Amino acid sequence: MKKAVFYHAGCPVCVTAEDMVSQAIDPAKYSLEVVHFAEKPDQIAAAELKGVKSVPALVLGDEVFHINFGASMADVKAS
Amino acid sequence: MKKAVFYHAGCPVCVTAEDMVSQAIDPAKYSLEVVHFAEKPDQIAAAELKGVKSVPALVLGDEVFHINFGASMADVKAS
Repeated sequence: MKKAVFYHAGCPVCVTAEDMVSQAIDPAKYSLEVVHFAEKPDQIAAAELKGVKSVPALVLGDEVFHINFGASMADVKAS
Repeated sequence: MKKAVFYHAGCPVCVTAEDMVSQAIDPAKYSLEVVHFAEKPDQIAAAELKGVKSVPALVLGDEVFHINFGASMADVKAS
C-alpha cells in the first residue's frame, strides 16, 4: 500500500480537486491522507520540502502533482 | 463505470503524469482513455471545448484537472 497525501487550503478549487482525488484514486493501491493547512499549519514546511508550490497538490511517493491552481504556498503562509 | 480521459502531448511532464494517472486511478470506477494529441490532432478542438487549456490534463465527466504544466494548447496546436 503506497501513501498518497493531498494538500489543500480549503479553497473552492481545492475542494473540487479533493472530491476528484478521493473518488478516483485506487483504494487498493493507495492510502490517502488529506492535509488541510489551516488545520495543520505545522505541515507547511514539510510540504514545501517535498516540492509543493501551490495547492491543491497530490504527493505520491516523491512525485508532486499540482492539480489546477487554488493558491500559492506564499498565499497559504500569509493566510 | 465513468469515463476518464487523459490528454497529453508526449512531453516529459505529460509522461510522468500519465504514469501517475494510469497507476493511481481506480479501475473499478473509471475506464481510462489516453489521448496523445500528436497521434489524434482531431481531438484538440473537442478537448478545448471541454475546457482543456494545457497538457497534461485529466477530464472526469465535466471536470477538467490540469496536472502540473507541460505545454499550453497554443503550443500543442503550433507543434
